[in-house]
Amino acid sequence: MFEKLFDINDLKQNEICSTYEIKFGQYTYPYHLVNGISREFVKPLLELEGVDSFVIVCDEKVERLYAQKVKKEIQAYYTCHIISFHCGEPNKNLKVLEQLIEKVLELRITRRTCIVGFGGGICGNMAGMLSAMLFRGIKFVHIPTSLMAMLDSVLSLKQAINSSYGKNLIGFFHTPDMVLANIEFLKTLPKAEIVSGMCEVVKNALTIIPERIEELCNLCNAQSAYSFKEYKFFIDISIKAKMAVMKEDPFEKEQGLILEYGHTIGHAIELASKGSISHGEAVGLGMLCAAEVSHKMGFLTEADVVLHTDLLKKIGAITRIPEELKLESILSVMRFDNKRGYLSSEKGKFHMIILEKIGKPLMNNGSLLTSVPEEIVKHALKKLMD
Amino acid sequence: MFEKLFDINDLKQNEICSTYEIKFGQYTYPYHLVNGISREFVKPLLELEGVDSFVIVCDEKVERLYAQKVKKEIQAYYTCHIISFHCGEPNKNLKVLEQLIEKVLELRITRRTCIVGFGGGICGNMAGMLSAMLFRGIKFVHIPTSLMAMLDSVLSLKQAINSSYGKNLIGFFHTPDMVLANIEFLKTLPKAEIVSGMCEVVKNALTIIPERIEELCNLCNAQSAYSFKEYKFFIDISIKAKMAVMKEDPFEKEQGLILEYGHTIGHAIELASKGSISHGEAVGLGMLCAAEVSHKMGFLTEADVVLHTDLLKKIGAITRIPEELKLESILSVMRFDNKRGYLSSEKGKFHMIILEKIGKPLMNNGSLLTSVPEEIVKHALKKLMD
Repeated sequence: MFEKLFDINDLKQNEICSTYEIKFGQYTYPYHLVNGISREFVKPLLELEGVDSFVIVCDEKVERLYAQKVKKEIQAYYTCHIISFHCGEPNKNLKVLEQLIEKVLELRITRRTCIVGFGGGICGNMAGMLSAMLFRGIKFVHIPTSLMAMLDSVLSLKQAINSSYGKNLIGFFHTPDMVLANIEFLKTLPKAEIVSGMCEVVKNALTIIPERIEELCNLCNAQSAYSFKEYKFFIDISIKAKMAVMKEDPFEKEQGLILEYGHTIGHAIELASKGSISHGEAVGLGMLCAAEVSHKMGFLTEADVVLHTDLLKKIGAITRIPEELKLESILSVMRFDNKRGYLSSEKGKFHMIILEKIGKPLMNNGSLLTSVPEEIVKHALKKLMD
Repeated sequence: MFEKLFDINDLKQNEICSTYEIKFGQYTYPYHLVNGISREFVKPLLELEGVDSFVIVCDEKVERLYAQKVKKEIQAYYTCHIISFHCGEPNKNLKVLEQLIEKVLELRITRRTCIVGFGGGICGNMAGMLSAMLFRGIKFVHIPTSLMAMLDSVLSLKQAINSSYGKNLIGFFHTPDMVLANIEFLKTLPKAEIVSGMCEVVKNALTIIPERIEELCNLCNAQSAYSFKEYKFFIDISIKAKMAVMKEDPFEKEQGLILEYGHTIGHAIELASKGSISHGEAVGLGMLCAAEVSHKMGFLTEADVVLHTDLLKKIGAITRIPEELKLESILSVMRFDNKRGYLSSEKGKFHMIILEKIGKPLMNNGSLLTSVPEEIVKHALKKLMD
């Protein structure tokens, strides 16, 4: 399929289907959504101003499948290097970042070099940190290859890596200069990764755009068999949902916190599962727990909780916490969740985002975080374990 | 002297002498300049909003001399920890930063913790990086203890650390929430460090505020014996010079680049000397070279070059490159200077800031960087070596 890149006659203009102008506060960048890999795909890269060379950061699989060919295309105009590393969660840390920084500097790059993060969310975060820290910030482009990256991680200014004390505790904000998304990449993606991304779409629908839930329901299937048009819909509504809450809150500290729905418990489940549960599915379980918590506290109805379960089932995600995961291990991770400190911390309580009703977060004194007693969280977790 | 901290009756109100409102573009922070350590000194810390605890980052000497006492004072109101490390140039790297990050996280800090960088420029940079990267940015206060830190490094949004490929190649911009400077700390400072800081004052005078040169000349002495009033003058004119160029250029990329005068060659001399020449004196030599280059290119007069030399002699700084430093080792560092890439790079040329006349940088197509042939740089370096 990639061979089209080298046959300009094969280029179908309508394959380059949409350009979104992402606006998060004062920070803006273009998001090009394409279907089908052709020479046109890399054209926006070549048109970036003030760039004298490129360094593509990716894993070995992406290098072999796509990046070598993109490099060849770029090299007709600019110096281009590839640095590949194993893009797994255990490598999303400062040690590996330092190795990448040293490797990039070894290439004698300049302030005009553009870093291209070519891969999933982890690759994007590492490339984002890298570009932010080299010479105090150089140009940075995302080429997301997973659904999760396309509709979630590249639609954020957040860059973060893990510490031995928890996920995403280290990081900062850094704006990409461009996103080049290509639905073609999704065709080689394992089903589990599509499901993981779809969980974020469900989250956006339940929290920000409830008016799209019915439409979404009709398109979803547990086989993750989606057409280009369907993927475009998922990305489209996710961009709109994110822009709706981040246009006035680019740093996701106020209303943007709604995007963390399901994450307090979800992160803990993901970490406690040691990676056996994907980020998306862990957030899905986290949303279910949050719905149970809200129901227990008298907000969401039984039917709202069932809506959570149904949507997750529709997209083929798990709705039960696997047996091997112990309640205590999830709770102990939660106790050092990185949302601590948004509110002054109280022992025996967790800070969570819960819904007052579908599409509307519960507000507490202007904050989206609700203090929830550990007992209620335990109760909700147990309901997904029995 | 520090004992005064615990005797509120000894407090002289006039010791708290000035508060400056630092404005670099949209970024602002207060700079409190104090003489004499009393309880009042830590008061602004205790008044910071939204803080639930403090972590002081310093070296062992500062911990012993001052930080333990400041901690005690803070602890009457807030949790306060001290993390000390050896603040030398070889430790200004990502490995040590990672150790600090892990140590701070081990203290179970929150998003409301305030990091206090208590020390010289290296300590300030490491604390700045630390506060910027924890939870994507937490509160950050500078307590500078060296003259260089008081009048240069805390007056910048730049945070940077070294890579094995060069000084300050890794970093980003991060705004402190406050500066608490105290002239008292300078009383225990070695003369060499005072001279180093004074080189930056000379730089500010030669490049931005030539109208203060005469006044400065009258106050300087090679013994570095200065009164509180004189230090206040040096800090005052440095704040004014920095604000003049950074008010419209907070990231020091355009007119703010003038602050890098003497740094292209100076950094190389500092690095090649393996720390035996202080940052300030290295920049002093760098300015002398830049003046020679400008003279050779037909801009500065012989008298302007002599003014550079005279000012440096007045403050007790060296004006000759020590014998043990080889020309080739300086040039090889320069070839990978971190200013590469502001202009597209040309082999055999260096990008330097040179003066057209005293107080006025030479402009090239709107840029402060001039392409200088290696031969002319060599000539200038040799003049300081014979």
